[in-house]
Amino acid sequence: MTDPRPQRLEHLREKLRSQQIDGLLLSSLPNIRYLTGFSGTSALVLATSSEVIFITDFRYETQVSSEIGDFAQVRIESSSLWTGLWGLLPRLQTNEILGFESAHLVHRDFQRLLNEGSRWQWRPQTGLVEDLRESKDEEEVALIAEAARIATTALGRVVPMIRPGLSELEVAGILEKALRDEGSEDAPFPPIVASGPRAALPHARASRRVIERGDFLLLDFGAQYRGYCSDVTRTFVVGAASREQREIYDIVREANRVASSSVQAGMSGMAADALARSYIERLGHGAGFGHGLGHGLGLEVHEAPRLARTAEASLKQGAVVTIEPGIYRAGWGGVRIEDDVHLSATGPKVLTNFSRELLEVA
Amino acid sequence: MTDPRPQRLEHLREKLRSQQIDGLLLSSLPNIRYLTGFSGTSALVLATSSEVIFITDFRYETQVSSEIGDFAQVRIESSSLWTGLWGLLPRLQTNEILGFESAHLVHRDFQRLLNEGSRWQWRPQTGLVEDLRESKDEEEVALIAEAARIATTALGRVVPMIRPGLSELEVAGILEKALRDEGSEDAPFPPIVASGPRAALPHARASRRVIERGDFLLLDFGAQYRGYCSDVTRTFVVGAASREQREIYDIVREANRVASSSVQAGMSGMAADALARSYIERLGHGAGFGHGLGHGLGLEVHEAPRLARTAEASLKQGAVVTIEPGIYRAGWGGVRIEDDVHLSATGPKVLTNFSRELLEVA
Repeated sequence: MTDPRPQRLEHLREKLRSQQIDGLLLSSLPNIRYLTGFSGTSALVLATSSEVIFITDFRYETQVSSEIGDFAQVRIESSSLWTGLWGLLPRLQTNEILGFESAHLVHRDFQRLLNEGSRWQWRPQTGLVEDLRESKDEEEVALIAEAARIATTALGRVVPMIRPGLSELEVAGILEKALRDEGSEDAPFPPIVASGPRAALPHARASRRVIERGDFLLLDFGAQYRGYCSDVTRTFVVGAASREQREIYDIVREANRVASSSVQAGMSGMAADALARSYIERLGHGAGFGHGLGHGLGLEVHEAPRLARTAEASLKQGAVVTIEPGIYRAGWGGVRIEDDVHLSATGPKVLTNFSRELLEVA
Repeated sequence: MTDPRPQRLEHLREKLRSQQIDGLLLSSLPNIRYLTGFSGTSALVLATSSEVIFITDFRYETQVSSEIGDFAQVRIESSSLWTGLWGLLPRLQTNEILGFESAHLVHRDFQRLLNEGSRWQWRPQTGLVEDLRESKDEEEVALIAEAARIATTALGRVVPMIRPGLSELEVAGILEKALRDEGSEDAPFPPIVASGPRAALPHARASRRVIERGDFLLLDFGAQYRGYCSDVTRTFVVGAASREQREIYDIVREANRVASSSVQAGMSGMAADALARSYIERLGHGAGFGHGLGHGLGLEVHEAPRLARTAEASLKQGAVVTIEPGIYRAGWGGVRIEDDVHLSATGPKVLTNFSRELLEVA
């Protein structure tokens, strides 16, 4: 496998030229990981037309040599990363106008640019690296596919263990253990375990509620593999499904199927959203689908693009997106079925292989 | 139990008066939770001398009515929270000079204040609410104590299951399941499971490394209860400890004991740090203790105060802090023993009750 970093750096440099800036100060850790391979939690990177400087703290001294190698000039700072930056900046060539990440720098640190960094001109930038991250290369798709395999395999181990009387927290624990056993490095977000009426809350976490026979049980969770995330949702019925549960489930399942099989690179985010939404609306449940169809997925579990009613940008070839239609009714419950889909040159490829049939568990 | 919010609001208003500002825009979610009780992940709050306005999105409509009640004027926004702010601000009385949280507002959002918010004068503020959060009231200490009970009880269930041949990831899964079974709402941070030479890395997570007989096994993790965090570390030996392992362990254990029993409100953070550090240095291991002694703990797992060589501020009565001395040697391993300690009016009270003897497990 070839080192993807030189090509990513070259693409970033093209963007710097088109923005007429001499360099970019990176403070977003996922952007830093994408560009340099560093997986720690403390770093600043300055990428210019001719150099890359990397600053981290003493905790990462060992890790840096294996992850960064000679891709960048590395400085280990014992106190503040910013001290390191002000020490290195004057030594660089040809950098008068520097960009910074407007969406990833807090005001307090922005003030440092105006104070200690006042010798340079600082230009706010948004999305330069995020934009590159949107199209995944083959290696990245393989890592997301592995994160998807971990998540769906873990789910397969959890389903036989679900039974009335367990709390949502206990189910979360069973799921988290299965994810670790399958090799997940971390949880991209705290798993959602929502039962009964709580399945109607699109952002429920897990609670002390005890699962009862007849409940919907919605599990929305992910795995992480070498930094890349998966994000899956399945909704089960505990015991026998009612006619109404089955009716809502079947609509969501068909909306998922239609959107997963017809989403395409080149389509706008709103057109993709409409693939599922128009079907759900046609069956009279549009008001119950209160969120967007999906989002991009990669080093972050939410990244570009957006698939939503207001998303005008086109989906790029190579993006990996979630397709997660849902129907919710307050006090009654809800259903969401979410898959991860790669927008390949030959069409959509679903990476999350787990049954979408209505499973009556326990 | 009385509602703590009116008193917290009153204390914040005293701070606004002393800073000569008419109100404060809160964008930090832990600060918002402290002031309003809201536990969701999307909100803006403006607290003025006479009003509190609270803005969130549609996902939290149900949750807001139970958590906020009539403590604030609530606005549910379907698109951007900022749209809601610009809609509500002009209706408020007497607000010309407003503060914002400089450490919790990214530059992009700061630009909104200068653009859409240009009718008001905006003053950067740091630490106003964090400062209030530093001294915990009785109820808060009880919640942290419960988070500590969850963590230590879970650890007691994990220890008998540790054996050579398990990977660090598998141990993380066993631990995470035990934490959920004991009632942890969430992990305040991804657990550190570091075995053998990896125990020398103060910020290791869990890896695919398989545990071997003779390894140190360091577990650093926490639990969460009603938003409040605990943070505990214990280091075990898998099998029989060597003389050298026991020697290092005993030094760290004594440093932990000395610091936990003598840390006091009123002491500076550097004086607290020195309680453990001077002992470790006296025994010739100062170079191996490469981090600070501890940090405050509450709604966030890292909050004020700091206990470190450079921390000049005094520890406040009522603070809950970690005491976590360690000695690390690259390539060999390391030991850290971490407890959570409440600085009560009558002296330090350790909240994390779990043996500090050297346990030889498996």
